[in-house]
Amino acid sequence: MGGDFGPCVTVPASLQALASNPRLHLLLVGDPDAISPFLAKGEPLLLQRLQVVPADRVIASDARPSQAIRASRGTSMRIALELVQQGLAEACVSAGNTGALMGLANLLIKPLAGIERPALMTVLPNRQRGRTVVLDLGANVECSSAMLVQFALMGAVMAEAVLGIAQPRVALLNIGEEESKGLENIRSAAAILKVMPTINYIGYLEGNDLLTGKTDVMVCDGFVGNVTLKTMEGVVREFLSLLKTSSAGGQQAWWLKIVSRWLQKKLARQLGHLNPDQYNGACLLGLRGTVVKSHGAANQNAFAIAIEQAVQAVQRQIPDNIAARLETVLTQE
Amino acid sequence: MGGDFGPCVTVPASLQALASNPRLHLLLVGDPDAISPFLAKGEPLLLQRLQVVPADRVIASDARPSQAIRASRGTSMRIALELVQQGLAEACVSAGNTGALMGLANLLIKPLAGIERPALMTVLPNRQRGRTVVLDLGANVECSSAMLVQFALMGAVMAEAVLGIAQPRVALLNIGEEESKGLENIRSAAAILKVMPTINYIGYLEGNDLLTGKTDVMVCDGFVGNVTLKTMEGVVREFLSLLKTSSAGGQQAWWLKIVSRWLQKKLARQLGHLNPDQYNGACLLGLRGTVVKSHGAANQNAFAIAIEQAVQAVQRQIPDNIAARLETVLTQE
Repeated sequence: MGGDFGPCVTVPASLQALASNPRLHLLLVGDPDAISPFLAKGEPLLLQRLQVVPADRVIASDARPSQAIRASRGTSMRIALELVQQGLAEACVSAGNTGALMGLANLLIKPLAGIERPALMTVLPNRQRGRTVVLDLGANVECSSAMLVQFALMGAVMAEAVLGIAQPRVALLNIGEEESKGLENIRSAAAILKVMPTINYIGYLEGNDLLTGKTDVMVCDGFVGNVTLKTMEGVVREFLSLLKTSSAGGQQAWWLKIVSRWLQKKLARQLGHLNPDQYNGACLLGLRGTVVKSHGAANQNAFAIAIEQAVQAVQRQIPDNIAARLETVLTQE
Repeated sequence: MGGDFGPCVTVPASLQALASNPRLHLLLVGDPDAISPFLAKGEPLLLQRLQVVPADRVIASDARPSQAIRASRGTSMRIALELVQQGLAEACVSAGNTGALMGLANLLIKPLAGIERPALMTVLPNRQRGRTVVLDLGANVECSSAMLVQFALMGAVMAEAVLGIAQPRVALLNIGEEESKGLENIRSAAAILKVMPTINYIGYLEGNDLLTGKTDVMVCDGFVGNVTLKTMEGVVREFLSLLKTSSAGGQQAWWLKIVSRWLQKKLARQLGHLNPDQYNGACLLGLRGTVVKSHGAANQNAFAIAIEQAVQAVQRQIPDNIAARLETVLTQE
C-alpha cells in the first residue's frame, strides 16, 4: 500500500481490478486504518474477494534499499512478499521503493536456477499494432554478458507465453547495427546469442527501433533501459500535453472550436496506446514467483493495469515457463 | 559530401545555407563530377561564395572507423578536416561515418589542453521554450568521471556562449535523483562537480527531464546519450507519422475532412520544434577547431541547419571559450 500516493490510489485501483476480473482475490497489506475509509464505498460483493492483512509500517519511497531491507521486518512490502513466499498469495504488486522491492524479492522469493539476477521487464506497444518486451528496466545498473543472455531468454519466454509469438525475434539495444559497435558486454552477449539454437536472435537495434516493431524482445542493461523508458515517457507526456493545450485560439468561430476539440480528443485517443499509464507494471522476471512493480506515481487506472499484469503472469505461469526454458538451455550446453 | 544520400542532399543544402547567410563562404570537398550537376541550378551570386575542392574518394558510412582512418588519405572527409587544420576553413560539416569523423578530427585538429576526448553535443528544444545542451551523444561509449566533468564544463560554455544563459544549470543524467543512485563514474563526477566553484551543478536528473527545461546542460556518457537521443527521435517520428495518418475516415463530410487536415497541419507545426530535423547537427566539442556531425539521413533542410550550427560555433568562438574556461579551472585547482 505504498507508492507516491498510498491507499487513496491503490485501494480504489484494487476495487477496479476486482470488478473487472471476477476470479481475482486480493490481499491488501497495510495499515487497516488507512485502508478502510477507501473500502467503505466498495460494493459488498467485491469486498468478499478482498482481505486486509495488517502491517503498521511502510518502507519509504526514498529510503536507501540496503538499509530499508535490513529494517524491513513488519513492513507492508515485506509481508506481501512473505505471503508469496509462503504460497498464501500467487503474486505481489507494489508501487513502493524499487530497490527495496527487488532486493527483498530476491532474498525471499529467490532467483530461478541459472539466473544470476532478476530483471525488470515491461511490454511496450509498437507501430505494427504489436507489442515489444523490453528488459532490463533498472534492476541491474551493470550487467555481464551472461546476464544479458539470461535476460534475452526470459524475454523470449515472455513474448511466447504472454504475447503468443512463436519464435520471437530477440535484439540487443546498441548504438549501431554493425558487429563492432557498443560495449564489450553487449558484443560478448551477441556472440553467445548468435550460436544459441533455442533463441531467434536478430542482432543489434538502436533506440529509434523501440517502437517500430522490428523486434519482439529488446534487451539492454538496467541503466540504459531505465533512462530509455523514462525518456520515452517524457516525450509522450510532452506530446499529449501539447495536444491538450494546442486548442484553437480565442479568435475562432464557435463551431471551429468545437470541431477542433473533438478532433483533439480523437487524436489523443489514437495516440493513447503510447501513454505510459496504459502499460504500467514492470514484472520482476527470473524469480520463483510473480512480483510486479508499478510506477510510483501511478494513478488508479494505471495501478489496476499493474494488478492485471500480475494476473496474466500467474495465469501464463511465467516463472515455470522460464525455469523450463533455462533447463533446456542448460542441458544443451 | 558523404552521408546516406550524398551530393543530391548536401549540395542543395549548401546553396540554401549560402542564400540565408550572406557572409557565409563554403568549400565543397568531393567528386566535382558528382557535385557539379547540382550546382547547375544555383544562382550565380551564390556560386561566387562557393568553391569545389576535389576529392575522388569517400569513407563508406559503414566502414570500420579504425580501418577507415588508416586508409583516409585523399578522402573528402580527411581533406575537409585538413582544410580546418591548415586554417583554410573555419569549420568542417559532415554527414559521413561518425566514428571516422571523430577519430580523424581528434588526430588532425587535436583536443584542447585538459580534454581527454571530445564529445558530441546537440541542443534540444524544451517545454519552457528554452533549449537544453546535451552531451555526449556517442563519441565515447565508456567515460571516466573526469571525462564527464570535462563534458559538464564544455556544455556550460556552450549554454553560456550560444544560448546566452548566465550561470547555466548543469545536471548529470541518472536513474534516480538520490545521491546513491547509478554508476560509479557518475557518482564520482557528481562529487567533483558539487565542489567546483565555476559550475552551477544542480544534481542528477532522469530521462523524463530531458524536455522539461529543468536543466540547461545534461551530461551523460556516449552510449546512454546515443540511445536516449535515438529513442526520442523514434518517439517523435512515431507521433508525427500518426498525426499524418490519423486523418478523419472516409465516412465524414467534406468540410470535416478539410477542417481535420487544417488542424493536423497546425498541430504538426506546433510539435515541429521537437522534430529531429529541426535540431540536426551535433558539435564535436573539445577540439581546437569546429567540427559538426550531421545526421547521416539528414534531408536538405536538416543539413542546412547543421551548416548553420557550424557558423554559430565559429561566431561564438566556442573552442576559444572552452579553452579559456578550462584554463580557469586548471589554475584554480
